[in-house]
Amino acid sequence: MEALLQQSRSMCPFLKRTSPTTLRTLSTATRPSSSPGGGTMSNLQVLARRCPVMSKALAVQSARLHGTKRFTSCAAGVTGMQPLRAPTGKRALHTTGGHPASLASGGYEKNERGRPGLNNPIRSSPAATEAAVRGPRPEAPITGRYNYEDFYNTELEKKHKDKSYRYFNNINRLAQEFPRAHTASTEERVTVWCSNDYLGMGRNPQVLNSMHKTLDTYGAGAGGTRNISGHNQHAVALEDTLAKLHGKEAALVFSSCFVANDATLATLGSKMPDCVILSDSLNHASMIQGIRHSGAKKMVFKHNDLEDLEAKLASLPLSTPKIIAFESVYSMCGSIAPIEEICDLAEKYGAITFLDEVHAVGMYGPHGAGVAEHLDYDAYASQDTAFPQSTKGTVQDRIDIITGTLGKAYGCVGGYIAGSAAMVDTIRSLAPGFIFTTSLPPATMAGADTAIQYQSQQPRDRVLQQLHTRAVKTALKDLDIPVIPNPSHIVPLLVGDAELAKRASDKLLEEHGIYVQAINYPTVPRGEERLRITPTPGHVKPLREHLVQAVQAVWNDLGLKRASDWKSQGGFVGVGVEGAEEANQPIWKDAQLGLQAGETVEAAVAREFNDAVSQTTLPPLKTATPLTEKAHSAMSSTPVGVVA
Amino acid sequence: MEALLQQSRSMCPFLKRTSPTTLRTLSTATRPSSSPGGGTMSNLQVLARRCPVMSKALAVQSARLHGTKRFTSCAAGVTGMQPLRAPTGKRALHTTGGHPASLASGGYEKNERGRPGLNNPIRSSPAATEAAVRGPRPEAPITGRYNYEDFYNTELEKKHKDKSYRYFNNINRLAQEFPRAHTASTEERVTVWCSNDYLGMGRNPQVLNSMHKTLDTYGAGAGGTRNISGHNQHAVALEDTLAKLHGKEAALVFSSCFVANDATLATLGSKMPDCVILSDSLNHASMIQGIRHSGAKKMVFKHNDLEDLEAKLASLPLSTPKIIAFESVYSMCGSIAPIEEICDLAEKYGAITFLDEVHAVGMYGPHGAGVAEHLDYDAYASQDTAFPQSTKGTVQDRIDIITGTLGKAYGCVGGYIAGSAAMVDTIRSLAPGFIFTTSLPPATMAGADTAIQYQSQQPRDRVLQQLHTRAVKTALKDLDIPVIPNPSHIVPLLVGDAELAKRASDKLLEEHGIYVQAINYPTVPRGEERLRITPTPGHVKPLREHLVQAVQAVWNDLGLKRASDWKSQGGFVGVGVEGAEEANQPIWKDAQLGLQAGETVEAAVAREFNDAVSQTTLPPLKTATPLTEKAHSAMSSTPVGVVA
Repeated sequence: MEALLQQSRSMCPFLKRTSPTTLRTLSTATRPSSSPGGGTMSNLQVLARRCPVMSKALAVQSARLHGTKRFTSCAAGVTGMQPLRAPTGKRALHTTGGHPASLASGGYEKNERGRPGLNNPIRSSPAATEAAVRGPRPEAPITGRYNYEDFYNTELEKKHKDKSYRYFNNINRLAQEFPRAHTASTEERVTVWCSNDYLGMGRNPQVLNSMHKTLDTYGAGAGGTRNISGHNQHAVALEDTLAKLHGKEAALVFSSCFVANDATLATLGSKMPDCVILSDSLNHASMIQGIRHSGAKKMVFKHNDLEDLEAKLASLPLSTPKIIAFESVYSMCGSIAPIEEICDLAEKYGAITFLDEVHAVGMYGPHGAGVAEHLDYDAYASQDTAFPQSTKGTVQDRIDIITGTLGKAYGCVGGYIAGSAAMVDTIRSLAPGFIFTTSLPPATMAGADTAIQYQSQQPRDRVLQQLHTRAVKTALKDLDIPVIPNPSHIVPLLVGDAELAKRASDKLLEEHGIYVQAINYPTVPRGEERLRITPTPGHVKPLREHLVQAVQAVWNDLGLKRASDWKSQGGFVGVGVEGAEEANQPIWKDAQLGLQAGETVEAAVAREFNDAVSQTTLPPLKTATPLTEKAHSAMSSTPVGVVA
Repeated sequence: MEALLQQSRSMCPFLKRTSPTTLRTLSTATRPSSSPGGGTMSNLQVLARRCPVMSKALAVQSARLHGTKRFTSCAAGVTGMQPLRAPTGKRALHTTGGHPASLASGGYEKNERGRPGLNNPIRSSPAATEAAVRGPRPEAPITGRYNYEDFYNTELEKKHKDKSYRYFNNINRLAQEFPRAHTASTEERVTVWCSNDYLGMGRNPQVLNSMHKTLDTYGAGAGGTRNISGHNQHAVALEDTLAKLHGKEAALVFSSCFVANDATLATLGSKMPDCVILSDSLNHASMIQGIRHSGAKKMVFKHNDLEDLEAKLASLPLSTPKIIAFESVYSMCGSIAPIEEICDLAEKYGAITFLDEVHAVGMYGPHGAGVAEHLDYDAYASQDTAFPQSTKGTVQDRIDIITGTLGKAYGCVGGYIAGSAAMVDTIRSLAPGFIFTTSLPPATMAGADTAIQYQSQQPRDRVLQQLHTRAVKTALKDLDIPVIPNPSHIVPLLVGDAELAKRASDKLLEEHGIYVQAINYPTVPRGEERLRITPTPGHVKPLREHLVQAVQAVWNDLGLKRASDWKSQGGFVGVGVEGAEEANQPIWKDAQLGLQAGETVEAAVAREFNDAVSQTTLPPLKTATPLTEKAHSAMSSTPVGVVA
């Protein structure tokens, strides 16, 4: 190979001026595993196609391969069929031969009031006409047409190059051993530290019982769209529960909150004349997509920056319809929006508020309705009923549209919007993403309903989750690990490099049996790569201690920057920034968590919950088995969605 | 009221020239049931706001109501809170008072490399600055701002006016009494004749067993996106099964096929330079949306019209990337695309094919892979394995991208794409609708996997479904009922009027205990409204006879047009069109269904399946209970998504 390269170099100006390293990079196939279809192409091959000498050589080679493949594979692969005859070889496969479609005009379509061709794939045309129009099956010319596989491979190569290519980890969360999971091997255990099943409701016995019963009585799927046989008592009950949870007139359930955000913003933004959508700069992809799809004018305001938002609102006529789209908890940094002040601005400037509480529902507020409810904690907590009877005048009441998920703290899947009856009815009536899709299964809706009701009636899980969060944050900070400061339940550890973040994640998994996914672009901006830890009520003391030791070891092993390193550089995304800790006090106050003055979090957890309680409720933990090389290889090096 | 109207008329030029009927229509609230939030507004009120006299009166009234409502509801509704003080009344609700956000600049954001405001909703600013910037809570001026509720109500009013407003029927399909369901009352039974759970897989014991086991072991939800803890063995297995089913290198699962179509077309169309998407005129909303979202050039070709498609392809340079997007079975008319010929054109003009098999997977082909597989029936049927080992050269093999659903014939929920490894990996890596959403629950994926494997191994359900379809079509045609001719499993009955279609559907439900949803705009074009019947293997002879009698009675009662009426008008959408029947012979041939020469379908069903077999497999049917007035009112007159 090296000899060939030397020889080629003497003749080819491209090879001459290109370094061996670059050549090696270019010639690496775009996919690390061998492609089953042989469809991969290196970037070197892409360049070769542009070369006047090589392109001809490749075309000859391609033609040879193409011809061979077609006839070999047809003849060898499908048994019991008629022999193939070129050039109409493939047609011979149609051994049933009943209904070749044709191009012939005529038939009934001319009578169809200008809708020719409806319902007539199979026309009663004479065979002669058919043959004349169709002719022999066209032979594909080798060159000239767009190379789709090249396109795919080039896109993938870009992802590999900038280290944003994703390898999915095969993680099977075990309901009876929560928060542990098995890997591709059912024998091997890891502790999951990055699930969005924040409260472990996915293994809650009441939720599972509700789902089992519903499955038995009503079956696996809804069997239709909401309009066509997919509407049922489970949808009615769930939407009723969601409306009550948020103190709104109505709610509407979607396949996911991605779809809910996309469909709602796209519909409102496109239908309201001259609508402007003001969008927080850190908004989730679903909102960004919905805004783009709406075609409405978009104004991005700086993250959580009220001055910037106000300046943008003030620049618009009062009469212009405006939607302020933002989140309560921003999931990748854990920041929390100034919701009340945004409501003030909305009222002042005649806008409506669209608040995504996806990472907050189930987690904040006395009933788990989210941060908006939490802001009026005592007022809501003073009510004895399962759901608050009146919420007029509260921050939550002032929000026009709340969106949330059933797939994170509620442990199931699906999303929703809640708001005024007319708003909800409008989206129900107009949004294609709601209208034209199969309803969620009855059992999913029943399980989610049970989860919401359960969480609305007792805050134990979210209090314990918050205590565990505090304990983890404190322990990591004590070790100078760069925890991005925030007032929420998210524990983001700043790494600042895509490759290092992945290596840290891999090391935690391989060497410590701890699963924390690396968060890289496009989920966070380049340069802000991180590990994102999400404690749950099931992360009892031994698991927390194990995590902290493991993170410390990985930080040492990889020489990752400490909080003090970031500080000496002037700070970054809140880490090592003067005053950031003080500005980011937890939104769950000590009193709300039952913390006594001066008490450490670990002491409070032990006193209030005795961690043994968690261990009794939760099944006993099994000792972590270190992963074998084989298992790891099966887990994380197969690009997924591909048949290996 | 009448007296007041008379009096007003003498003074108001608008009232003078407007008829009582129009006024009555305008003054009808946009929603038939009373709105819980009082947010509804009649069109008359909308007009009144434009009147120089009335607008002032309304503003005064509104201001009075607004003020009253705010203070009354706050004081009365939320107990245990501090007394409210205007104008900062609402802030007093924040009894926890821990973290009012502020507008103050400063804090750490200036150190954040140009990302001000990140993670700092709660800033360490002096209270004085806060008060100065925030000032008192702004009082909303009554006029001048956009009226969002008006907008919603106007949109809804449009739907009411053109009869496209939808009332969902509360239908609870009973797994143990398939294909029957209970209504809002658990005691009342109806037979469901319009579900897309075409094969009854939603109640298949193997599917349910698989789901129960997975629920117990792995819990209710996936707990994350595919990249962050939501990837697991169920996703791996399901995508492996789907790839094998279609003989493709890879597959990728989405929340729904709506999302799969939208995300895939939007991604490919936007990323391939100068891409053109050629779209069948009857394509599903999900594809239309995906194409729109791609921003790519779109060329709509006449439904199933190869000449038109070829003309459009020929108008484009060979080197331009082109995607031909179409369906195999068009669900609302039952037509089937000339798939092979479209492949020929794609090859000739350098395009790729994107085939939506949503209504065909599970239903066609020896393994249930869809119409593309069905076109090479014998070749595929000759293979003994669960999935065909080689499919090279077949029509299915020639399709570049196949999309399908897990929510119709497979009885669960979710959607997918299948194709080359590089294509699937590209979508996996780039499509926001895949990346940024929670995975389907493990139990859903396991259930769907079981359903696909089950259907791949035995064609009994789809054969019986086809026989029942033939029997229903024949019986209805014999009664001159206008069945839109098509070669598939869909039985669309042409009504041609939105209101009549709804009335026919209501009558079937109320008077006959039969649920067939009326299909109106936007699902079908205006003027082509229909009833869409979908038989299943569970629709045994007594149910079929009942349906046919009921349809006949409703057609008589409402005086709906018969097939002969449409014919005398020259025919419409295939009904009464010369040659349409002959051109639309079933794609499932007699031999494939085991029909003997000259045998009637009913005789074959009795001989082959003995209908008793179905009745043994299926639980015994209960006698239909006529619906009471009360139950019907609970079922179909409540607009849904609204808390009644």
